[in-house]
Amino acid sequence: MSIGILTSGGDCPGLNAVIRAAVFTGIKLHDMEFVGFRNGWKGVVDGDIMPLARPQVMGISKQGGTILGTSRTNPFEGGGAERVAEVMEQNGIEALIAIGGEGTLAAAKRLTDAGIKIVGVPKTIDNDLSATDYTFGFDTAVQIATDAMDRLRTTGDSHGRCMIAEVMGRHVGWIALHSGMAAGAHAILIPEQKTSIEQICEWAESARDRGRAPLIAVAEGFKLDTMDDAHSERGLDAFGRPRLGGIGDQLAPEIEARTGIETRSTTLGHIQRGGTPTAYDRVLATRYGMAAIDSIRAGHWGRMVALRGTQIVHVPFEDALGRLKVVPQSRYDEAAVLFG
Amino acid sequence: MSIGILTSGGDCPGLNAVIRAAVFTGIKLHDMEFVGFRNGWKGVVDGDIMPLARPQVMGISKQGGTILGTSRTNPFEGGGAERVAEVMEQNGIEALIAIGGEGTLAAAKRLTDAGIKIVGVPKTIDNDLSATDYTFGFDTAVQIATDAMDRLRTTGDSHGRCMIAEVMGRHVGWIALHSGMAAGAHAILIPEQKTSIEQICEWAESARDRGRAPLIAVAEGFKLDTMDDAHSERGLDAFGRPRLGGIGDQLAPEIEARTGIETRSTTLGHIQRGGTPTAYDRVLATRYGMAAIDSIRAGHWGRMVALRGTQIVHVPFEDALGRLKVVPQSRYDEAAVLFG
Amino acid sequence: MSIGILTSGGDCPGLNAVIRAAVFTGIKLHDMEFVGFRNGWKGVVDGDIMPLARPQVMGISKQGGTILGTSRTNPFEGGGAERVAEVMEQNGIEALIAIGGEGTLAAAKRLTDAGIKIVGVPKTIDNDLSATDYTFGFDTAVQIATDAMDRLRTTGDSHGRCMIAEVMGRHVGWIALHSGMAAGAHAILIPEQKTSIEQICEWAESARDRGRAPLIAVAEGFKLDTMDDAHSERGLDAFGRPRLGGIGDQLAPEIEARTGIETRSTTLGHIQRGGTPTAYDRVLATRYGMAAIDSIRAGHWGRMVALRGTQIVHVPFEDALGRLKVVPQSRYDEAAVLFG
Amino acid sequence: MSIGILTSGGDCPGLNAVIRAAVFTGIKLHDMEFVGFRNGWKGVVDGDIMPLARPQVMGISKQGGTILGTSRTNPFEGGGAERVAEVMEQNGIEALIAIGGEGTLAAAKRLTDAGIKIVGVPKTIDNDLSATDYTFGFDTAVQIATDAMDRLRTTGDSHGRCMIAEVMGRHVGWIALHSGMAAGAHAILIPEQKTSIEQICEWAESARDRGRAPLIAVAEGFKLDTMDDAHSERGLDAFGRPRLGGIGDQLAPEIEARTGIETRSTTLGHIQRGGTPTAYDRVLATRYGMAAIDSIRAGHWGRMVALRGTQIVHVPFEDALGRLKVVPQSRYDEAAVLFG
Repeated sequence: MSIGILTSGGDCPGLNAVIRAAVFTGIKLHDMEFVGFRNGWKGVVDGDIMPLARPQVMGISKQGGTILGTSRTNPFEGGGAERVAEVMEQNGIEALIAIGGEGTLAAAKRLTDAGIKIVGVPKTIDNDLSATDYTFGFDTAVQIATDAMDRLRTTGDSHGRCMIAEVMGRHVGWIALHSGMAAGAHAILIPEQKTSIEQICEWAESARDRGRAPLIAVAEGFKLDTMDDAHSERGLDAFGRPRLGGIGDQLAPEIEARTGIETRSTTLGHIQRGGTPTAYDRVLATRYGMAAIDSIRAGHWGRMVALRGTQIVHVPFEDALGRLKVVPQSRYDEAAVLFG
Repeated sequence: MSIGILTSGGDCPGLNAVIRAAVFTGIKLHDMEFVGFRNGWKGVVDGDIMPLARPQVMGISKQGGTILGTSRTNPFEGGGAERVAEVMEQNGIEALIAIGGEGTLAAAKRLTDAGIKIVGVPKTIDNDLSATDYTFGFDTAVQIATDAMDRLRTTGDSHGRCMIAEVMGRHVGWIALHSGMAAGAHAILIPEQKTSIEQICEWAESARDRGRAPLIAVAEGFKLDTMDDAHSERGLDAFGRPRLGGIGDQLAPEIEARTGIETRSTTLGHIQRGGTPTAYDRVLATRYGMAAIDSIRAGHWGRMVALRGTQIVHVPFEDALGRLKVVPQSRYDEAAVLFG
Repeated sequence: MSIGILTSGGDCPGLNAVIRAAVFTGIKLHDMEFVGFRNGWKGVVDGDIMPLARPQVMGISKQGGTILGTSRTNPFEGGGAERVAEVMEQNGIEALIAIGGEGTLAAAKRLTDAGIKIVGVPKTIDNDLSATDYTFGFDTAVQIATDAMDRLRTTGDSHGRCMIAEVMGRHVGWIALHSGMAAGAHAILIPEQKTSIEQICEWAESARDRGRAPLIAVAEGFKLDTMDDAHSERGLDAFGRPRLGGIGDQLAPEIEARTGIETRSTTLGHIQRGGTPTAYDRVLATRYGMAAIDSIRAGHWGRMVALRGTQIVHVPFEDALGRLKVVPQSRYDEAAVLFG
Repeated sequence: MSIGILTSGGDCPGLNAVIRAAVFTGIKLHDMEFVGFRNGWKGVVDGDIMPLARPQVMGISKQGGTILGTSRTNPFEGGGAERVAEVMEQNGIEALIAIGGEGTLAAAKRLTDAGIKIVGVPKTIDNDLSATDYTFGFDTAVQIATDAMDRLRTTGDSHGRCMIAEVMGRHVGWIALHSGMAAGAHAILIPEQKTSIEQICEWAESARDRGRAPLIAVAEGFKLDTMDDAHSERGLDAFGRPRLGGIGDQLAPEIEARTGIETRSTTLGHIQRGGTPTAYDRVLATRYGMAAIDSIRAGHWGRMVALRGTQIVHVPFEDALGRLKVVPQSRYDEAAVLFG
């Protein structure tokens, strides 16, 4: 049986561990053969394939990124199910393992509905997929953000400054929540919870008054309570000024002006999604890769692997679609006890 | 309300994060007061207490070990429930938070039965407690062991050597299982699975034959299938020779003799349990500390906090006692697919 | 003999190791006593002192920042030599150890000329002081920047993107040079070497043409050959547009537009100067702290400690002043061999 | 011009960065061609070569070990100069770059004397070569040992234990000296300085008496003042007992017995020499690799590259031979100020 693998969407530490585990398991237990599609769905619709046997995947678990390359191409822009079926047939490929986020899974669902044999592996560095407790990449991102905040804190303490770390999270605040809690942040600002600038300044001042240099973790998608979508449409920032930089850069001068505490912001950016995955992510990704082969063996087309507690389970694509897994109120309230 | 906190048993990254979160939460939300008992149950029976307010716990989450000190003292050796009650009364302490492993929880259960108000926080670097998915310290240990194996692998590859990493795990193989899987080990040897030296050599030779330097993760409590308890009683090693060093040191010359592959063993030892906790462990420990305060508020005496999926729950002490959480056959079989 | 210690200017990993080593050595060998001035020269002119004995400095070597706090205050703004002498006399302080960069050493020189007993310890995260081979903090900054670029590279490779890392270095390019060389950057852009956008794009394209995702290390103070000081005076960026963000953010869209390679920039910012120092920096800082006590014993007022090869030497303040240690042409040419 | 490269002796982080830089520089600037000899001198005498062009060396700087493999084979055991010349001629190789330690350089000198064109790159993780300030690998080893001691310290503090870290250094104590100083060890025991068990216990007790958990860094080659070579010949340990384990394991029970302080030893072993090199080592190794090409261009046969201060220089092989660079008394005395 010949299987094609593709990785799609933003890169994420652990992708290579999924690929390696799937290939090793399929070859060893079931005599499967594998090819890789280059650059996500683009490689599928273009028929751009690369060999994928033991030599290609040896030792890659600890490597960040994906040896297959990735893109944000949607297969339905390039021919859809018909074209995918054609490329698969031309290359003797019976089934696909699609590793990707919500967009990929949505496309995979449509292809499954059209009769293509696909199993999915969820990928979201933001931890925003509903159907799984966690997926790989998130733990690495949280660890990198936490390490960065540990470093920022010593500078804050030495200079008596408020330090802001802007982390990933356009729509959900999981990375900010976990890294902020791990680093002992005095405020955690997430998209799910609009907050007033007055409240933020109160937290900063409270920390300062207890002799601490305030540390604030803010997700890139956070909005002040005074902001509406019109702001970003008009190119204005959180304070109605022409927008320069991200939310961290917008907050810093405002906090400084209101509290008199010198404030600096750092945007962690792409370093959060690259490089060697944590052991946690490598284990999870490896288990996902192996479970994807189980899915294929069982003919679980249209399902993706997922983590529930300590178990890997198989859930329909649609369970992961349609609604983001946001930070629930209870988790925010829990974290907020330690603010200020 | 005044609460006493103690940490007992081997140290573990995350203990300080539990203490900090409990103290902050109790003070901030419920006007509680805290004292620390020094060196585990020893401090309780000796009445050796230290102040525990915000200044003592500020910034300690990222610090390994425990600011309270720890010991393996059993409270029933030093007076039992009566003495514990006496010390609590003398110091105006109404309830205890006991952070420890199976021994501590067993003692805590007996004290609870005798009317002492105790809530527990599970601590096991080995991941061997039944009632919780994970507890803090384990993730850090796995990460350290994985990093070490990543390093050993490059030496193995350069010299064409078989490298053995002996990791913690006297009775259960969780650390070996996870770090070995993360590092791509060619064999993982755990106490739950007696294995023959022939099988181990076969895995090593299989890896060598594919051009790889074999990497073996072995838990300190692993036993060959030819070993029985009599071996260690008589001071003999796995091969009936006078025992020198741990199982890794015993395996190395035997593998080398049988396969002709130069073999070296490294015992990671205490570095696995100290130092800065991972972000994962800090988040979990912080949530445990906060949940312990909820337990007290709810009067959940005789219960410990535990992780189930992504939720913190409260379970009776006895659920964690009596049987170790061993590596199940299914998890071992899953990992074994990648051996050799 | 009573000694005052102060740390001045931007914080830097290793400051605490200097303080600890000086205090331990002075107390142990020479029966000295120490006090710390809070927040640099500000604490000196304000008479704001804190105790500095063994308990305050135990275990602080591995802590980033400075337990004394720091500021950019100039002592001549707050009363000058007279005021400094007065505060020293009031507190029974005979000599000062001033840990700081060029500004601090310049002030220290003027104070020495006015009769104040001062020895210096050079501090520059940028490696821009002439009289010493290296000083502490630089190695840590280079390591952090290198780790970040290792991470960025995997994202670049996965997406076929050009990744830009903007590192510290307003006036000199040492951090960019070393981290760029360590990370295998395809271009290193430093203030000492104005470069054309055409040349930068050529390097990026050359890397791309060999199948590599281009990685560019740029110091924050780098200027294109078309830029003059007038640009920044007028608030314009490298391309004559209203200035948004740093040089990395300015280069990214231009490289993308000219080469067609998707390009992303990350500004590492403050994470480069905080947190646990590398072992290299801890050793150097410790040796500096001990040597500063030798300076005092020898009455080497007006001198600072410095590294020459593997030796710690004592050089006059003026040797470190007046001219920045820039990246010499030969070191740039050496690095440039590996560009493209 | 065609060049052969070999790596010989124990592996060391940075070897790959040397290889990459030499190959890139030679190809780019001088149209050279390269081949690699597999497994050190063994590959030379066996004529076992591998291609070495850009694709083989891309991205390998950050990889530990050596892609060429290494061995401890001496070329004079396998045919000597005549055989080496023959293999070189058969493969059209005009000159060799030999990367190795004292043994390699000694062999290279004899081969040079016999007319073979060789330039050397010094490799010593122990920092024991006389003719260079430092070489690559040492900084990484010191960093790993320091990180390990940082971890051990938190366990020591929590349990009130004395922790011993046995680090590499059979003949010289540089790794122990630097890592011990970086980690704030209370005693550093090195081969160059025989010490009495009474003195070691005094340091441990002094630390304990100040409320510190004693931390001891010991080089594997350290000997007590009561030990002579006869001990190891007769298989006896430092205390005249049958020898089990290394010096750390021998000291631990003796310190515990004499001081009453529970004592644990950890032998770091092979993790000190593998894995990703520090940025410092990558920069130094890269500069060495490039300078080796300069040596070839200049016909500096019989010379090796070396670091003096911040400069790369070229020194005759014999300058590196004959005498180990031991820790001088002054550096030990400096460190010893902080003991106890």
